Amino acid sequence: MKNYFSSDFKLGVLGGGQLGRMLLTETQKLDIYTVILDGNSEAPCSQICNEFHQGDLLDFDTVYNFGKKVDLLTIEIENVNIDALDKLEKEGLTIYPKPSSLRIIQNKARQKHFYTDNNIPTAEFNHYAYLEELKHSYENDIIEFPFVWKSAQFGYDGTGVKVVRNYNDLQSLPDGECIAEKLIPFKNELAVIVARNTDGKVKTYPVVEMEFHPEANQVEYVICPARIDSQVAEKAREIALKVVSDLDFVGLLAVEMFQTVDDKILVNEVAPRTHNSGHYSIEASYTNQFEQHLRSILNLPLGNTESKLAGIMVNLVGTEGYTGDVHYENIEEILKIDGVTPHIYGKKTTKPFRKMGHVTIVNKDINEARKIAQQVKETIKVISK
Amino acid sequence: MKNYFSSDFKLGVLGGGQLGRMLLTETQKLDIYTVILDGNSEAPCSQICNEFHQGDLLDFDTVYNFGKKVDLLTIEIENVNIDALDKLEKEGLTIYPKPSSLRIIQNKARQKHFYTDNNIPTAEFNHYAYLEELKHSYENDIIEFPFVWKSAQFGYDGTGVKVVRNYNDLQSLPDGECIAEKLIPFKNELAVIVARNTDGKVKTYPVVEMEFHPEANQVEYVICPARIDSQVAEKAREIALKVVSDLDFVGLLAVEMFQTVDDKILVNEVAPRTHNSGHYSIEASYTNQFEQHLRSILNLPLGNTESKLAGIMVNLVGTEGYTGDVHYENIEEILKIDGVTPHIYGKKTTKPFRKMGHVTIVNKDINEARKIAQQVKETIKVISK
Repeated sequence: MKNYFSSDFKLGVLGGGQLGRMLLTETQKLDIYTVILDGNSEAPCSQICNEFHQGDLLDFDTVYNFGKKVDLLTIEIENVNIDALDKLEKEGLTIYPKPSSLRIIQNKARQKHFYTDNNIPTAEFNHYAYLEELKHSYENDIIEFPFVWKSAQFGYDGTGVKVVRNYNDLQSLPDGECIAEKLIPFKNELAVIVARNTDGKVKTYPVVEMEFHPEANQVEYVICPARIDSQVAEKAREIALKVVSDLDFVGLLAVEMFQTVDDKILVNEVAPRTHNSGHYSIEASYTNQFEQHLRSILNLPLGNTESKLAGIMVNLVGTEGYTGDVHYENIEEILKIDGVTPHIYGKKTTKPFRKMGHVTIVNKDINEARKIAQQVKETIKVISK
Repeated sequence: MKNYFSSDFKLGVLGGGQLGRMLLTETQKLDIYTVILDGNSEAPCSQICNEFHQGDLLDFDTVYNFGKKVDLLTIEIENVNIDALDKLEKEGLTIYPKPSSLRIIQNKARQKHFYTDNNIPTAEFNHYAYLEELKHSYENDIIEFPFVWKSAQFGYDGTGVKVVRNYNDLQSLPDGECIAEKLIPFKNELAVIVARNTDGKVKTYPVVEMEFHPEANQVEYVICPARIDSQVAEKAREIALKVVSDLDFVGLLAVEMFQTVDDKILVNEVAPRTHNSGHYSIEASYTNQFEQHLRSILNLPLGNTESKLAGIMVNLVGTEGYTGDVHYENIEEILKIDGVTPHIYGKKTTKPFRKMGHVTIVNKDINEARKIAQQVKETIKVISK
């Protein structure tokens, strides 16, 4: 086995945001030398990795030259220059997840075609090269309101997704390649994180349940395990495994799904990396998702994905009406509650709905955890001063 | 409350070894800007803190000037220049643990006098300014073999402690201030970590049991909870609380104790910081000792010290016969076992018995955990290549 635990080995990570920051805790635990590229010189990882490089993740030369400095390359965000990754891979660099997987996932239209091509259940959709094509489609009664518009490229955290209910909504959409998806009446939004190492060994985390903020289209609570029927959970798990297998994926894949009113499971979208829906694992799981990501890309044995306790995650997002130097109001109040752990991502300025941190609640009793999560949500406020 | 979670606030830490490294995981989690001083430019913290300064922790000017750069000062090792801390404190810097506590603890003779002055049970001892005095004491039949010799200053990890069984042992002792302590026949070595914040709020971690390596006088296994009678555990907890109260201590105090053959509890020694006997808490406790240390010195509410699961820690020390670039043999083998988490401290070179890392084992069943700990111990080897 290659000696990852030596200073001769350099792990490169594209992206230095909060996911990179939590990954660094694990590279530090295993003493893996970690080099990070991010466009922002004040990115959450900038001061605490072994080497930090500032540069545009979408620029061919920047990504290519960065790749030349490292022994293994991974990502914490999928919006990176994949042409550069292809060239690096051809020249012999090991990259996980594989550029071929990233190319399918990065474009939401291509991702949807992948599902239908592989008989993976997903909501019906139409694909348009330009917004004008979508408008024509509406005018010719091929699609009807309401539908879900998704930008094909570079949506993140609810940007690039909109429920289109009327003509006004349609007019306000930005131009560009997109899809229009059938609006699915669902009972629950679920997610399953699957880890697969280079040997093809696979483990799944328990199915989690996500409660969304009605306006911001951001996850408010992630609840592990999901309070659903075990047969539905098993179906979700099987579909997630099929996605990973059909992609021939290496690394961590977070599969977001709808549980429809008639208990069908439809894949909504996937993320080829550690994911917000797995943050609970730091406190609740035997092996957290960040350590598991390292285990999978370094081809180490995968860790136990079971939970020690029930876990709920509350996202800490910027309160509406505040932009500026961040202040975490009442953080000391939530620290009084047993089993409550805040994670602050180190972003200097807050703005409405920006992800600034998260709080994990663990408890033997999931209903008690859910009550505490509500209390946490109502107590701590991310504001500016 | 002072806004610790802002980049205007700087936490200073004296010492940048493995304890500092694990503390950094927690300062990163809470986004607390952390500045570290250590004598070694390649110390485990050097690359992953916000600011690293190289300098001698025992030099007055170095420590004083470092203290002038920070808003709150703490330690990860007690062997620091306390005169400089006194001056900084007089000039208004907040320092936890308080220099007055550190002065008592740093010198083992003063520490022992403190116990007897405060009716805290401890083994009988004699105090000598020079080794010659101890030899006279032996020659005049005031002390007899076997006894435990301890250097008054700067013992660490079993250095500065020796069981003196015969005249040869006596002759090989180094010169300097020391104590000779009665050798106690004990059933168990126990430890209790107590956290006390600046408001005087106190929490104790469960009593742990320590198994020592017979030759190196280093802890081999730490077992939480200790497999002892609950009345003995309660007695240990009460004595630990008395030590903290009598010292008027702020921060984390690890109290090491003997359980004698007749179930008396005697204080062996204390450490005014996070401690090897609390490393299990990262995986096993609701609040790990490093987060708890921050909570106590920042006067935040103390976290829950209960355990999620039984936890056992195995120290990873350099194997005898190997000195040089470190290699962790069979680390991938132990990663195959559920509930096993290695922590590698990032030291470049190994030597016999040097602490290079630790491994935590968590399990619902403490006996199962103990079996796995043995397996881990027998599998992983810290060698050089």
